[in-house]
Amino acid sequence: MGSKALDELLKQPSEWLRGAGPVSDIVISSRVRLARNLEKYPFTARASKASQDEVLRLAKESLGQSATLKRSLIFEIKDLDEIDRQFLVERHLVSREQIVHAEHKAVAIGQGEVISVMINEEDHLRLQVMQSGLNLQDAWSLIDALDDELSETLPYAYSSDWGYLTSCPTNTGTGLRASVMAHLPSLVLTKQINKVLHTITRLGLTARGLYGEGTEASGNFFQISNQVALGRSEEELIENIERILKEVIHQEQTGRESLMANNRVQLEDRIWRAFGLLRHAKTVSSSEALDLLSAVRLGVDLGLMNGLDRKIVNEMFIFSQPAHLQKLEGKALSAKERDTKRAQLIRSRLGGQS
Amino acid sequence: MGSKALDELLKQPSEWLRGAGPVSDIVISSRVRLARNLEKYPFTARASKASQDEVLRLAKESLGQSATLKRSLIFEIKDLDEIDRQFLVERHLVSREQIVHAEHKAVAIGQGEVISVMINEEDHLRLQVMQSGLNLQDAWSLIDALDDELSETLPYAYSSDWGYLTSCPTNTGTGLRASVMAHLPSLVLTKQINKVLHTITRLGLTARGLYGEGTEASGNFFQISNQVALGRSEEELIENIERILKEVIHQEQTGRESLMANNRVQLEDRIWRAFGLLRHAKTVSSSEALDLLSAVRLGVDLGLMNGLDRKIVNEMFIFSQPAHLQKLEGKALSAKERDTKRAQLIRSRLGGQS
Repeated sequence: MGSKALDELLKQPSEWLRGAGPVSDIVISSRVRLARNLEKYPFTARASKASQDEVLRLAKESLGQSATLKRSLIFEIKDLDEIDRQFLVERHLVSREQIVHAEHKAVAIGQGEVISVMINEEDHLRLQVMQSGLNLQDAWSLIDALDDELSETLPYAYSSDWGYLTSCPTNTGTGLRASVMAHLPSLVLTKQINKVLHTITRLGLTARGLYGEGTEASGNFFQISNQVALGRSEEELIENIERILKEVIHQEQTGRESLMANNRVQLEDRIWRAFGLLRHAKTVSSSEALDLLSAVRLGVDLGLMNGLDRKIVNEMFIFSQPAHLQKLEGKALSAKERDTKRAQLIRSRLGGQS
Repeated sequence: MGSKALDELLKQPSEWLRGAGPVSDIVISSRVRLARNLEKYPFTARASKASQDEVLRLAKESLGQSATLKRSLIFEIKDLDEIDRQFLVERHLVSREQIVHAEHKAVAIGQGEVISVMINEEDHLRLQVMQSGLNLQDAWSLIDALDDELSETLPYAYSSDWGYLTSCPTNTGTGLRASVMAHLPSLVLTKQINKVLHTITRLGLTARGLYGEGTEASGNFFQISNQVALGRSEEELIENIERILKEVIHQEQTGRESLMANNRVQLEDRIWRAFGLLRHAKTVSSSEALDLLSAVRLGVDLGLMNGLDRKIVNEMFIFSQPAHLQKLEGKALSAKERDTKRAQLIRSRLGGQS
């Protein structure tokens, strides 16, 4: 079933899941994305099939020569079955929009999934770099190098007044979106999360769920990013989001310390119950798994769970998603079958009865 | 704290908890009780202090000489603190009524807690024999022997018209109550329990909770006993309850087989989740513990949980009760402290983190 090359990705968890890097007890991953379009070609939504094909051809050629992206895999979405497409979404390698109308769309994936490039999404090119922990600076350096390299062979649409031109005006200017995936369980438990989210929104950031725009926050994960890409340099945008994030992180840390000091038994009880359920349940829904894994991750991050590696917990968040389960099983599974397979996968990763 | 002699009982679980004997996958224990009074002495509720004292003295003397009850312990309730009194209730050695007004009341306890005798409860003497599994016949033989022996030294109140005279008319006649503690989780899960309880009530039996009269059924345990003690011989009463019980047991077995055949995943999930919670939780209430232990016991009885002994599960039902926890800890504990101690005790018995 599905693409053999994607099966290779299945065996190797994304590099950014390794649970290391700065503040990795709170920040899962940092991502920088650049939106780029080719001049003289209409934006994807308004382009003819021939024009989209030409953009695809040019992009593939340029990406194929990239030194930064060396030994990348390029997949045309139309060649992938439904499960493989969903697999790429679960890996955060393509957007949900990218897989709906598959014609003329593609994704290039670099080693360890650190770099990836979507072709013919809303913009002709969407460059992405993912890093483990709070590490927007490294992500920015890497994507900046890739962008410089690609600009040598691809004629970017750029205006000296507006900067990089994009399909949606919120991206115009730098074309940059910097985001981090933050795990904020203590802010949720102590009911401070709404206040915090309200504040960051007023400061020009936005918070979304685990799979970006339009998804609900689940498992206490929040994807926090800049709202506009205009009027500041890339470095300023990244410094701004980092400054605000450090305050959010501080509040989450304070919340955790307060829970440990004042509600230790209840906190440990919650964490170990989640562990006990994951280690022994025979069927677990996707949303329950997220909630329970969130509690277990908090336990790991608080140093309460000896011998359990944060990397294992991180990987379970991704590997317990529907397409991952189906690729691991090698066939399509019903929702009920997935719940059983999910429970089995998590049990075996946690060392429980199989 | 408390009685040193009772501490010995604490170390040694009651013999009837060993989880063996006939049908012990469904029937925890069988109990036969005889109500006896001494002629020429008013029933306890109407008796003067002097009269109660005299009954106590005569009973202790007779019990002390008993060959059947050899090497028994005799406790006067007034000598015991609140926790020790509650401990005796949790062991099913005295009734809740027996410990409220403690003066002139006592209990004699034979080896392994198989035989016990309450003095100056509602009746002057309440003889009790407990057996593991469905074993009313052995319980009856043993209590009959004890009764014959005591009748040689104690002048029983007996009428040739009515039989043994008792404080409450429902006990008059044989003075016998035979009961079994049955674990009926499949009848509860499949919602057949109310129909079953209704039927056995029509057949002259009654069903109560874990701690007898006035207690709610919890943990899917039902104490099933005869409602009247009159108009039939002891053997007939016991045969009648056994015959009806065999039908209840058959229905529970059929329910279990049906769950295993048609809802195996859900059933195993329920059982292993209960195990996971008990093995890892840091605080567990008394009522949650009963429910979770009931699920785990079902798992053991269905052969799903290798290496976990039914005896261990049975003991946890009793040892996780409040007075047992406090005696184990050697001091009085608040409800919150008991929930923590209970979780710790169960975790360590199940081999989880301590």
